[in-house]
Amino acid sequence: MAIKTGEEYRQRVLKRKPKVYLGGNRVNSLMENPTTRSVIEANVQVYELAQRPEYQDVMTAKSHLSEDIINRNLHIHQCIDDLDKRAGMALLTAQKLGTCNYRCPGCDMLSAMASIAWEVDKKKKTEYYQRLMTYLEFLQKNDLVLSGATTDTKGDRSKRPSEQDPDMYVHIVDRKSDGIVVRGAKQHQSGAYAADETMVLTGLACHKGEEDYAIAFAIPTGSPGMSYICQYNPYTAERENTDDLSYLGNPIYGQRETCLIIFDNVFVPWERVFLCGEIEYTQQLIARFAKMHRMNCGGACKVGFIDLIIGATALTAEYAGISKMPHVMDKITSMVNIRETVSACSLAAAFKGREEPQGSGIWLPDDAYSNAAKLNVSTGFWQVMALAADIVGGLVATMPHERELENPEIKQYAKKYLKAASSAEKRLRIAKFLQHWVAGLHGASTWHGSGSTQAQMITLYRITDFEEKKRLAKDLAGIKD
Amino acid sequence: MAIKTGEEYRQRVLKRKPKVYLGGNRVNSLMENPTTRSVIEANVQVYELAQRPEYQDVMTAKSHLSEDIINRNLHIHQCIDDLDKRAGMALLTAQKLGTCNYRCPGCDMLSAMASIAWEVDKKKKTEYYQRLMTYLEFLQKNDLVLSGATTDTKGDRSKRPSEQDPDMYVHIVDRKSDGIVVRGAKQHQSGAYAADETMVLTGLACHKGEEDYAIAFAIPTGSPGMSYICQYNPYTAERENTDDLSYLGNPIYGQRETCLIIFDNVFVPWERVFLCGEIEYTQQLIARFAKMHRMNCGGACKVGFIDLIIGATALTAEYAGISKMPHVMDKITSMVNIRETVSACSLAAAFKGREEPQGSGIWLPDDAYSNAAKLNVSTGFWQVMALAADIVGGLVATMPHERELENPEIKQYAKKYLKAASSAEKRLRIAKFLQHWVAGLHGASTWHGSGSTQAQMITLYRITDFEEKKRLAKDLAGIKD
Amino acid sequence: MAIKTGEEYRQRVLKRKPKVYLGGNRVNSLMENPTTRSVIEANVQVYELAQRPEYQDVMTAKSHLSEDIINRNLHIHQCIDDLDKRAGMALLTAQKLGTCNYRCPGCDMLSAMASIAWEVDKKKKTEYYQRLMTYLEFLQKNDLVLSGATTDTKGDRSKRPSEQDPDMYVHIVDRKSDGIVVRGAKQHQSGAYAADETMVLTGLACHKGEEDYAIAFAIPTGSPGMSYICQYNPYTAERENTDDLSYLGNPIYGQRETCLIIFDNVFVPWERVFLCGEIEYTQQLIARFAKMHRMNCGGACKVGFIDLIIGATALTAEYAGISKMPHVMDKITSMVNIRETVSACSLAAAFKGREEPQGSGIWLPDDAYSNAAKLNVSTGFWQVMALAADIVGGLVATMPHERELENPEIKQYAKKYLKAASSAEKRLRIAKFLQHWVAGLHGASTWHGSGSTQAQMITLYRITDFEEKKRLAKDLAGIKD
Amino acid sequence: MAIKTGEEYRQRVLKRKPKVYLGGNRVNSLMENPTTRSVIEANVQVYELAQRPEYQDVMTAKSHLSEDIINRNLHIHQCIDDLDKRAGMALLTAQKLGTCNYRCPGCDMLSAMASIAWEVDKKKKTEYYQRLMTYLEFLQKNDLVLSGATTDTKGDRSKRPSEQDPDMYVHIVDRKSDGIVVRGAKQHQSGAYAADETMVLTGLACHKGEEDYAIAFAIPTGSPGMSYICQYNPYTAERENTDDLSYLGNPIYGQRETCLIIFDNVFVPWERVFLCGEIEYTQQLIARFAKMHRMNCGGACKVGFIDLIIGATALTAEYAGISKMPHVMDKITSMVNIRETVSACSLAAAFKGREEPQGSGIWLPDDAYSNAAKLNVSTGFWQVMALAADIVGGLVATMPHERELENPEIKQYAKKYLKAASSAEKRLRIAKFLQHWVAGLHGASTWHGSGSTQAQMITLYRITDFEEKKRLAKDLAGIKD
Repeated sequence: MAIKTGEEYRQRVLKRKPKVYLGGNRVNSLMENPTTRSVIEANVQVYELAQRPEYQDVMTAKSHLSEDIINRNLHIHQCIDDLDKRAGMALLTAQKLGTCNYRCPGCDMLSAMASIAWEVDKKKKTEYYQRLMTYLEFLQKNDLVLSGATTDTKGDRSKRPSEQDPDMYVHIVDRKSDGIVVRGAKQHQSGAYAADETMVLTGLACHKGEEDYAIAFAIPTGSPGMSYICQYNPYTAERENTDDLSYLGNPIYGQRETCLIIFDNVFVPWERVFLCGEIEYTQQLIARFAKMHRMNCGGACKVGFIDLIIGATALTAEYAGISKMPHVMDKITSMVNIRETVSACSLAAAFKGREEPQGSGIWLPDDAYSNAAKLNVSTGFWQVMALAADIVGGLVATMPHERELENPEIKQYAKKYLKAASSAEKRLRIAKFLQHWVAGLHGASTWHGSGSTQAQMITLYRITDFEEKKRLAKDLAGIKD
Repeated sequence: MAIKTGEEYRQRVLKRKPKVYLGGNRVNSLMENPTTRSVIEANVQVYELAQRPEYQDVMTAKSHLSEDIINRNLHIHQCIDDLDKRAGMALLTAQKLGTCNYRCPGCDMLSAMASIAWEVDKKKKTEYYQRLMTYLEFLQKNDLVLSGATTDTKGDRSKRPSEQDPDMYVHIVDRKSDGIVVRGAKQHQSGAYAADETMVLTGLACHKGEEDYAIAFAIPTGSPGMSYICQYNPYTAERENTDDLSYLGNPIYGQRETCLIIFDNVFVPWERVFLCGEIEYTQQLIARFAKMHRMNCGGACKVGFIDLIIGATALTAEYAGISKMPHVMDKITSMVNIRETVSACSLAAAFKGREEPQGSGIWLPDDAYSNAAKLNVSTGFWQVMALAADIVGGLVATMPHERELENPEIKQYAKKYLKAASSAEKRLRIAKFLQHWVAGLHGASTWHGSGSTQAQMITLYRITDFEEKKRLAKDLAGIKD
Repeated sequence: MAIKTGEEYRQRVLKRKPKVYLGGNRVNSLMENPTTRSVIEANVQVYELAQRPEYQDVMTAKSHLSEDIINRNLHIHQCIDDLDKRAGMALLTAQKLGTCNYRCPGCDMLSAMASIAWEVDKKKKTEYYQRLMTYLEFLQKNDLVLSGATTDTKGDRSKRPSEQDPDMYVHIVDRKSDGIVVRGAKQHQSGAYAADETMVLTGLACHKGEEDYAIAFAIPTGSPGMSYICQYNPYTAERENTDDLSYLGNPIYGQRETCLIIFDNVFVPWERVFLCGEIEYTQQLIARFAKMHRMNCGGACKVGFIDLIIGATALTAEYAGISKMPHVMDKITSMVNIRETVSACSLAAAFKGREEPQGSGIWLPDDAYSNAAKLNVSTGFWQVMALAADIVGGLVATMPHERELENPEIKQYAKKYLKAASSAEKRLRIAKFLQHWVAGLHGASTWHGSGSTQAQMITLYRITDFEEKKRLAKDLAGIKD
Repeated sequence: MAIKTGEEYRQRVLKRKPKVYLGGNRVNSLMENPTTRSVIEANVQVYELAQRPEYQDVMTAKSHLSEDIINRNLHIHQCIDDLDKRAGMALLTAQKLGTCNYRCPGCDMLSAMASIAWEVDKKKKTEYYQRLMTYLEFLQKNDLVLSGATTDTKGDRSKRPSEQDPDMYVHIVDRKSDGIVVRGAKQHQSGAYAADETMVLTGLACHKGEEDYAIAFAIPTGSPGMSYICQYNPYTAERENTDDLSYLGNPIYGQRETCLIIFDNVFVPWERVFLCGEIEYTQQLIARFAKMHRMNCGGACKVGFIDLIIGATALTAEYAGISKMPHVMDKITSMVNIRETVSACSLAAAFKGREEPQGSGIWLPDDAYSNAAKLNVSTGFWQVMALAADIVGGLVATMPHERELENPEIKQYAKKYLKAASSAEKRLRIAKFLQHWVAGLHGASTWHGSGSTQAQMITLYRITDFEEKKRLAKDLAGIKD
């Protein structure tokens, strides 16, 4: 069986020294820095979930290449049930981690990339699909963590690459006999430094003349020329400076940790190049990855987050003695409704998925429902945050440090005045958990993870068959053309 | 094959003389009164859709009783695919009629009633299920239009039946050797007078002492003691007084037509009684019907209506020359997003349906998603109305009668000044179609069809497993109990 | 005193025979046709409100021309208190009529037109302001009903006048020694046929070459070349065909009645021309009228309508026995909040009004708040409709004709089953009143009255001082340029 | 003149040693701890604004006691213009500080307390008003920072004080000849430790038997028995651990800093007691303070914050090269609309203010508009956050530390890849500023500052005259009672 343990993964990470920067300094040990470590711990947990019998149906799959049981994060979806379980994995890991499954973008890229590679090969007699399958076999056999990167830094958004610093989008700067050399950077990337490998897709729907930007490839973590600049925010500062992780809102797994990946003349051998110059397939490559990712990251994963927020909010209400107040019940039900709505969109995307292209054996989700999932979560997540903040009360903002409960000078006051229908300890702890969710980066991250809403709006408009709807209206209204 | 034609149905209707009142007068001929006729025409069209090869997959099913091909409106759902197609039928009829499939509540009652009858029989050694199947065979063999009624008139909502006029809820007033006698009235009922039969379910989750209210039965249209009082509104007046239906917004099928059904000591033979005093099953009977109906009437049907509104709005924008304005594209896309969201909830309800009770062979949709479908459509439909009204402009309110285009005194002005990027005729016609949707009864009807939002909120709260969500939050927050 | 009676007005109307068309036919008597009569009755009531001592503070003002007490509808605002009372008049007439004060657009045009005329005269040595004041004296002395028209029919919205049928915007077709000749049509116009006079403003922010479109003038009702085509909708049909107005939702005053006014080579003498070719002032003329009208028609008037809907909804809840249910109280409070929000925007527009231009003595409301009033009401009114429809229940859509309560065959049932915590009569009557509001034209009308939301969005963007806000942000963020 | 300088204030603070705890430790110097210092700096800035000629109209007032020019934060409002300027002060300080004017609750308490004291004295022959005026003279003469505290810790919300630990609400534990002794704690309190004095009002609408809870008093900072436990959150950690404040989002003034104030048998002399046992005035005392505070903290202050967010968002769009994209313009305009709406409610509250009680000379704002201001900002602020997060893009969450731009190992990459239409420095700085607003505590704080939305909903329902609205509806609907 090709399922590895978290410990095996941890050992691999310990051996690598990628150039990672955080807070203005080089990170010498990914395991010692508390922020980068949170990513490793999340990855370890994903390995461990795949080992637990009760989750194997969701967390593992049978490889279509080897018939081996593999981690589902490395699976190419073969049917609707696979898509359903893919969404189920996003839900489960979100519930268990309260942060990214950092293997998620890589997973969603694999099926999208396979689908395009199959199609390009068929039309252009290339051999991308076979290359990709060879690479996939390697990943599956070793159960590697595959990360994924797509968003270019873009520079001035009103300009194409040729109208500004050409490196604002990752592109080929040299073609050699054994591979290509690329330059540029990918931003908003989740946890690549702690992965084994990273798949990189063009983020640009390329026009004629932009052939050098029409690329897709995979690369081992920390390859020569690569650097990683980590995000830094108040939550990073809090984690850096605590002596006890249990004081934090999501102690072990923390916030979603991203980085800016820099490619400074990085060499990629041909065996790892899966698109190279075929501009006419770039829009579809992005669109297919986007719909995979909007179903999972945009949809199902956030359902898991919302479950955590609902659970914490319900606890909060209980602890404060307000859980039976009608307006509290009403607001919690509104949160549930948002949860079910996003979940339904994600599931409908899976259930109305289809083989794409026909004959490829690769199944991708429905376009409209996956985009609707993301649009609903973009606004819905803020509503959930606001509703939770409403019920938890001012405490979520004004809470003191949990250490006050241990400070001999003050603890008798802190314990006395922060108690309610439960102890001060519990109230502070659940309030801290909710602070992590409703007074931090999750609103903004959810808005942009798997693409901004404007991207989804444009997609929805593009894929809707308005002619059919016009025909239906004309038929009933008695308009003949 | 047990599929009948619209003409056979029309002949049956012509033979009946139920006591129907509209606008303060008895309706002498259901076919001649333009309002009641619209219901008949809709029913005829549903028969005809079932005859068209391209729709047979959706509109027909194989009977689990006889193996005959039957109209899907009379089918007991046997699997998830049946639920999916049931939602598909709701979508199709909505798109083709722009009003109710008047067989819809009856259809949704059949599976819910079967599920409860099966369960009651198992627990109480009754024989309701067999009775129901015998009745169903009769319906299927003759392909009859089965209507359904559930909402009692309720009187003072703050009181139980025993605290006020006991007839405010339909109930048994006499039990005889051959059957029961019932009294009361059902309101908001869609088109019963034009059906062949009506199924009647208790609308009250009965308490002890309310055994007489715990009933379910079926009855032929116009049985002794029954009267029907039709709704009357401005759209009724407009239909009554036009000399040419093509001037109306939905010329043939009109608005959703409802009535108040009065039962004044109506006798029901035991063979048609499917629940009689089992108060402990009433809440579940209502809940199971509700989730069926919220998936279909609350969800999929309104998706079809929204398709019509989107199509008409897109035409309107085209006719006015504004279809490429960014804010118009954005608003139409928002309508599409609402459409896909409601549709996804309805589909998820089907796909996550289950056999209920286990062993019964009867499949019912998921509770949470069907309720979410209805909650989304309640607010979403008004948003769609508002967006459509925004784009179509003031014309939807201020439009003159289409006859002005034919009036010799004025037609040169009317044609000249009402034209835009299209002719005045087309603009008026599509504006009239939209007036029907955005300046009429559909907002209010959609809010209440298959139950008010408060009913869905209560259901969602009741069925949500908050303990599981609290557990997930505690696990991550490090709270041990 | 220059305050006239409703009866004097009625006598004037009876003497005129404008060419008015409704439902495809000429209206021979405005007093006999029940639809056109509703406009006259509304005007009569506005005269009568001005006679009642308790309303004189709001309904009348002291003329700045004659020092006479005049109807406020003919007043040029001289100070902030005038603006406040102008909004107060809009509120009062809305509460008392449940439809337009048909003198409202004319009133709002007077101050806007005066402000522009004063400015043009000052810059261009024209004499528009004096002409206008002479005309105003005539209006004030006779207390005439002044209507107003601005929205051109526009034809294909993607084209300027010169790119299509030039008559799609009202324009000068001939200039004579004694006046101008105009052609075109104005749409969405409220009740001009029942007014004494109509003021007509360009609806086009004119470019160079469009001088013939840069016009403003006044004209007596039914002048040669003018025709009026009335709106026609289901509510018109219902009113036309009832034998007893008390069965209707707003028995006396009905819906807002609009018309399309056609100008077929209509002569306007110079004394009534207030702008003629000054293209550079057209945008400001429209903007100043718009902000007046958005404060009043967009803001305060709709507050009065919302008061009626809240009152009726509260009655409905009382009649049904649900007024103490928490979700009902919560929803009614949400309606109140929308009401207060729109009202606040309207009031802030008045209170932050200013003399414009400086030295003119004419006071106009604030731009931002008046536009915000309209934006809030556009979406808020639909929310109010939806909330009212939620509470009133399905009855608002499914209610039978009130005549059923008098029909000997059926009345015992109708009275019995439609009663609740009140009689069936009262329930039907208030339900009919609400049907008028929540299942009719008011949603769409409110959206477009005083301009579509897109017009307000563009205005808000244009008038906002973003540079000041950027400066504030830079100062705090420590960004120096 | 009774206007003091910031430096005088700073010297006073340096002399005091209140017991302040933060992060589990005693704060030894309020000036050295970077968090408590941010409060002092904000207070200093408020003193300085009052010295600047361009702001004197807003920041100062003429005392009704001494005729001296005083800081407006210590003024009792004497007319509508005072209320308007009070709101203007809230707006200005918000724009200039990006955090609390920490004198705001004290200011709002003064007029509310004076209004109640005047009324109680008149009814009960007490002497609270004179005591308060004497105290006020002392405050005004020395231009002291008066803080305010009202929210009790409440414990189990489903219980009254007598049903649980009685100290869950601040109350009298002893009455002596020279004063009272109080015990309990006040939470969510803004910056009291850095004030000169604190006014404390009951937060409980007291029932009979709860006389000991019906209190109001003032007390110098750090009086014996008082302790302060500060809030602690990720932003505190970030501030604690930075070596350069300019790396932070709001470098000098930081987040809104609150504390829990503990009163452990604190003695208050009678001269500083302004309510003592008069339970029948407690609801009104809370309500009058609430409406003052909802106009200012709930309304005008947040308008200033929204200005900062709009400004920063506009800069962000400019820096990224997207400021002319239609959807960006549309979203920014939506932010402006929310800004104007909240502002309008706040202004309407001022303009419709009234003398209360009649004869007292004290002016308080309108109830409905002040509550509507808060309701609009509660939801509106989250919408503004979401819209800003949408436009600024993922960068607001994923941004690295600004120090990366100075790190020799990586700065060439950081500068290159984080630039857009502007330099990386500016983009990071404005993104950090926005992170402070949209990825932190402001959403939750805004929700609860000046009371949760449920409190406003209850107030709005209570103060609305539904009978008048019912009457209006009945009049038009033709319902006679």
